[in-house]
Amino acid sequence: MDLIVAVLRGLGANEEEAYIQADVWTEADLRGIHSHGVQRLPVMATRIQKGLLKPNVKPEKTWTTDAVLNIDGKDGFGTAICELGLRELTPVVRKHGVGALSVRNAAHIGMVGYYAERRALEGLASICFTTTEALVHPFGGAEALVGTNPIAIGIPGDPRPFLLDMATSVSAMGRIIALKHRGEKIPEGWAVDRDGVPTTDPDAALKGSLSPAGGPKGYGLGIAIAMLGGLLVGMPAGREVLGTLDTDYRCTVGDLFILMDPKAFPGADTMAAGVKTYLDELRASRPATGFKQVSVPGDPEFKLREERLVNGIPHPEEVWHAAEQLRSTICK
Amino acid sequence: MDLIVAVLRGLGANEEEAYIQADVWTEADLRGIHSHGVQRLPVMATRIQKGLLKPNVKPEKTWTTDAVLNIDGKDGFGTAICELGLRELTPVVRKHGVGALSVRNAAHIGMVGYYAERRALEGLASICFTTTEALVHPFGGAEALVGTNPIAIGIPGDPRPFLLDMATSVSAMGRIIALKHRGEKIPEGWAVDRDGVPTTDPDAALKGSLSPAGGPKGYGLGIAIAMLGGLLVGMPAGREVLGTLDTDYRCTVGDLFILMDPKAFPGADTMAAGVKTYLDELRASRPATGFKQVSVPGDPEFKLREERLVNGIPHPEEVWHAAEQLRSTICK
Repeated sequence: MDLIVAVLRGLGANEEEAYIQADVWTEADLRGIHSHGVQRLPVMATRIQKGLLKPNVKPEKTWTTDAVLNIDGKDGFGTAICELGLRELTPVVRKHGVGALSVRNAAHIGMVGYYAERRALEGLASICFTTTEALVHPFGGAEALVGTNPIAIGIPGDPRPFLLDMATSVSAMGRIIALKHRGEKIPEGWAVDRDGVPTTDPDAALKGSLSPAGGPKGYGLGIAIAMLGGLLVGMPAGREVLGTLDTDYRCTVGDLFILMDPKAFPGADTMAAGVKTYLDELRASRPATGFKQVSVPGDPEFKLREERLVNGIPHPEEVWHAAEQLRSTICK
Repeated sequence: MDLIVAVLRGLGANEEEAYIQADVWTEADLRGIHSHGVQRLPVMATRIQKGLLKPNVKPEKTWTTDAVLNIDGKDGFGTAICELGLRELTPVVRKHGVGALSVRNAAHIGMVGYYAERRALEGLASICFTTTEALVHPFGGAEALVGTNPIAIGIPGDPRPFLLDMATSVSAMGRIIALKHRGEKIPEGWAVDRDGVPTTDPDAALKGSLSPAGGPKGYGLGIAIAMLGGLLVGMPAGREVLGTLDTDYRCTVGDLFILMDPKAFPGADTMAAGVKTYLDELRASRPATGFKQVSVPGDPEFKLREERLVNGIPHPEEVWHAAEQLRSTICK
């Protein structure tokens, strides 16, 4: 964490930007979501050095109504812009019961569940959308035209929030990159090659496209999120979304967050207990053949996070080495 | 449509309730979604006759904030309660940019896309959730513990809105009932029998459980919708959700609608054109082997609706006969 902050500070990030960016990556790595962790540092460093990501800029904030905040990030850190914008939106949501934040012209915001989980810890429910490069083929199509466009839904709960954080593709491209880094094959059904033929080779998948989760369902949800997280926010949809994985283009991702205060809804007093009861019922239910236990979204990641908070994160040599090398060249 | 209205009026529904309920069913039948069409009339008639659905009751409306409307439906018609509630919420959404409606203690609201499409035609974006009976097994589980919990997302567009309306299961139980009515088998992957073994027999599926779309993704989304559409709204999640398919229990479904006015967001002026461009790009893209053309969610249903507006809806004999019979016994 100190190493990441040092590198980002060395690249010109202010303290808040560096801290939040490092925290988002670390939370991803703690949960085993390495695709959204510190392995992204070298790409981000290059993006900053090329002026595609601008540290320490002042985002332009516009309240179009008393419940909708729109932020033009001026090519700054998406992570800090979203997190600080959401903190600003929070009192408004407590007043109106519902509120929305849109963020445009900002860098990749990382694991979208990060924001949903923080809001849930503060007692707010949230639905968060972000767009990505068009890496997914339509259902029945052979071209990559839809983003993996993830959705995160956070619900306050006891002893901890319910957190759903998922791409609308079977997998995220970052996970394929992570498997490539580890020299592993990808599972069947995740992706097709450039000719539309299913593949287990990460290199072929990187040149082809990802498959939508649940066929037409993930495809449809991906389009809807392109419209909500992209077009509504004043950013593009489909192939014009760029700048999260490459080092050549401005980031044209869009982000949309809808927050709700359970206190404004009839479930205010019963919801937390209901969440616990329901999740426990799912966990205790009869597993299908081949499964040891029924799991609930977020459970495996939370368990791994607990373990890694004690034992540390086993970064692959090359990821850590790249960060160290960046520190030695940047922070002289 | 006149026949349905006559039967519902005969059962005690007021004019608005009867008209909206008939319209929701007819829109479903026009699109070929017979599971959510007039085939549900006999069950609803029995529910009304048994006092489980109460026609002509006055719902209790509570504005907890200036942007959140909560309605206790008092066991009334869910269709009319939601549609009229959404019309009441609309000016508030135009003022605040965002608003929410929760509905509890109301009957099954039918095809959830109905409400999303109407809002989109009025220029508002919406995300709509509703809960259903626990018909879906968890990913890795063998018991039916999750609703098919559909989501609808409507986006204003030109020449017509983008509409996503999907269950979080591979299929909806109503479609299996419809196939059973037609004496057909169900496709593989839709459902498992009571022992958790995949089946193509609609009767075995009705005794077993539906499979979640995209495995863990549809499962996770189903749980999240149980919390947003159910627990947040003050209604139950999982097995306690009853009363849409049976004739024995009060309806304990919950409904949540989040509306946004694009005018409050940066995409206000560019969104409609962007939606058209993007959808046309998807439609014109290269199809995969075995597909003639890439389709966009809502397209096949819209095409069928256009055709049926001219040629009529080919109802199975028994569905129409049941409605005729109800009229002859009720409307003396």
